[in-house]
Amino acid sequence: MAISPSSTASTGDAIDTDPAFALHRGGKLEVRSTVPVRDADDLSLAYTPGVARVCTAIADTPELVKDYTWVSRVVAVVSDGTAVLGLGDIGPSAAMPVMEGKALLFKEFAGVDAVPICLDCTDVDELVETVVRLAPSFGGINLEDISAPRCFEVEDRLRERLDIPVFHDDQHGTAIVVLAALRNAARLTGRSLGDLRAVVAGAGASGVAVTRILQSAGIGDIAVSDSKGVIYPGREGLNPVKRALAEETNRARLTGSTEEALAGADVFIGLSGSTIAEEALASMADDAIVFALSNPTPEVHPDVARRHARVVATGRSDFPNQINNVLAFPGVFRGALDVRARTITEGMKTAAAMALADVVGDRLCADYVIPSPFDPRVAPAVSAAVAARAREEGVARA
Amino acid sequence: MAISPSSTASTGDAIDTDPAFALHRGGKLEVRSTVPVRDADDLSLAYTPGVARVCTAIADTPELVKDYTWVSRVVAVVSDGTAVLGLGDIGPSAAMPVMEGKALLFKEFAGVDAVPICLDCTDVDELVETVVRLAPSFGGINLEDISAPRCFEVEDRLRERLDIPVFHDDQHGTAIVVLAALRNAARLTGRSLGDLRAVVAGAGASGVAVTRILQSAGIGDIAVSDSKGVIYPGREGLNPVKRALAEETNRARLTGSTEEALAGADVFIGLSGSTIAEEALASMADDAIVFALSNPTPEVHPDVARRHARVVATGRSDFPNQINNVLAFPGVFRGALDVRARTITEGMKTAAAMALADVVGDRLCADYVIPSPFDPRVAPAVSAAVAARAREEGVARA
Repeated sequence: MAISPSSTASTGDAIDTDPAFALHRGGKLEVRSTVPVRDADDLSLAYTPGVARVCTAIADTPELVKDYTWVSRVVAVVSDGTAVLGLGDIGPSAAMPVMEGKALLFKEFAGVDAVPICLDCTDVDELVETVVRLAPSFGGINLEDISAPRCFEVEDRLRERLDIPVFHDDQHGTAIVVLAALRNAARLTGRSLGDLRAVVAGAGASGVAVTRILQSAGIGDIAVSDSKGVIYPGREGLNPVKRALAEETNRARLTGSTEEALAGADVFIGLSGSTIAEEALASMADDAIVFALSNPTPEVHPDVARRHARVVATGRSDFPNQINNVLAFPGVFRGALDVRARTITEGMKTAAAMALADVVGDRLCADYVIPSPFDPRVAPAVSAAVAARAREEGVARA
Repeated sequence: MAISPSSTASTGDAIDTDPAFALHRGGKLEVRSTVPVRDADDLSLAYTPGVARVCTAIADTPELVKDYTWVSRVVAVVSDGTAVLGLGDIGPSAAMPVMEGKALLFKEFAGVDAVPICLDCTDVDELVETVVRLAPSFGGINLEDISAPRCFEVEDRLRERLDIPVFHDDQHGTAIVVLAALRNAARLTGRSLGDLRAVVAGAGASGVAVTRILQSAGIGDIAVSDSKGVIYPGREGLNPVKRALAEETNRARLTGSTEEALAGADVFIGLSGSTIAEEALASMADDAIVFALSNPTPEVHPDVARRHARVVATGRSDFPNQINNVLAFPGVFRGALDVRARTITEGMKTAAAMALADVVGDRLCADYVIPSPFDPRVAPAVSAAVAARAREEGVARA
């Protein structure tokens, strides 16, 4: 793509020398035809007049749209740009490189075609209505980087309105990978999930979803904290999502800081961007499990965490046990699309986590509780488990 | 893609034997990555953490989204499915094969990446708002198969709201190709456009746009007709678009049928799906020009028309002089995107038509007033003319 002088004038040396900019120049995606258009005969089949017969058949039998268009295999990666990576509310245009990247990962890791859609609206009603109107064009909706607590309502309402998978990856992608890693960490240390008491730092999209999936997987107890400390019933200023969490977590009725809650805890899961002092980790139970997932700066440096924890995981690729959503979302959608699932259920998410954990197999050790994102077994294992579970639960259409 | 028994049960033999269905199976498009993702290093550039630097740069300098994402080279092909081919209001799902086909033609004929977007809404306000919200994700909007007269308001309002090209192809694509063919037909018969009196049958999207472009190109006079006959001032029941046409066309104040209006006319342009009797064609002036563009059934069979007309064109590929929008829209958008035009002006459309006409050159004859859709000179000629005109008119940004 041509670069106008005006658009590069203010950017300075960083863009000239940073390989990320070189790679991003002109974008990262293209659309291609899967059928030939060499001559008038091809054109008369792919376009008029032949296409009219396909349109008429779909008008008569709507389900045929899934057989004779790309709709049933293409996912919209939808964001409003309000919670992009750790950058916050940078708007739809600045969010586009992430959504393009997500679409690219869908294709590269699981062969799922995906289109980045960054929307110029942030009102919940407007987001929901816009995605509902777009829905005939897609086989699934991957919501991305929409700020909490709006993301919960947007997803809930879209799940009610649409009969295709709707999946907020910041919530459920993270939750699936965390559950997989925690299942393996517990196995390594001879415990079941029910034996574990956990502290989840962060009550945004990922913190809430991780808490939910761990609850449904039978974890012993969880205390969830936000920037004001542990969430408990009656704490002032809780939004509805946190109020619900307060009722359903924290059996010990802790009321202090995140670090205070760690005393005697088995598991720490950091999803908050905060920092945790070494002394707090030292107060945890034996065989502690520390997932310091803030990125690029974990809540505690993994080398420090290893002094006090049996298993340490982060979001970073330069340390062992990288908790990376790419381990989940490509296979989850691949499996859901393959069976034309109406939705992605809690059971399908848990099945994805268990399949992901099982990829580790006999090689399980403290530095290998979760597979590498580049392990080619991951997406097939996850998609097969998701598809099988969809069939078992009766939400598959094919 | 797997086919569920339920989705094929009602379709019968046609689908089994029709090559159009075989070609459409699984859809006609895919999304592909243009950058490698082989290992963690690639991933750290295409996705986190490298992508965050690109996002930050765009947040600081919004214009950079055009350099570092695919936005400035991808077009949304947007329809509500209310006026699909000759099939009418078949809805967004049944429209999808056409929009996929359009996206495919964009890529094959001019290297333009395009995404089909079929919307589940038909209210003008909702259509406009939805496309405005989508706009950060695209470099241009190709509106398609939206019924008249709503299509006029949708396009007008989007052109006001957005600073990227918005182009209703049913209007302007057809208009550009008709103008090109008519310019050459006039040249063949030694006349200028100002010498010609035309009858345009059809006051929908294409009829109105053809009338407008011929007016701006200086045609002598035009009578426009709809199913009730020629449109004239004071005729009852005219919608606002037709009321405006009545004031600006039909200098002779004709009031009868389309066929009556053809007496002595130089040009017939059929865009109505109606039929024209041979006697009416016989009443036209010498060296008559007949463009019977309804598809798949022209208003008059070309063999019949040739008895009375010097030049005959249709929308069909199996007769000479095929008026096919694919001669215009790929090159128009290619040219507009190449210079990052803010809009597509009337001047850019006329420049496209003249460039298209010029491709015919010295080989001009009655059976060759417009190039073949597969002539490889077409898209480059059109795009160059559109880009040059955008620069001349000051609407180019690169």
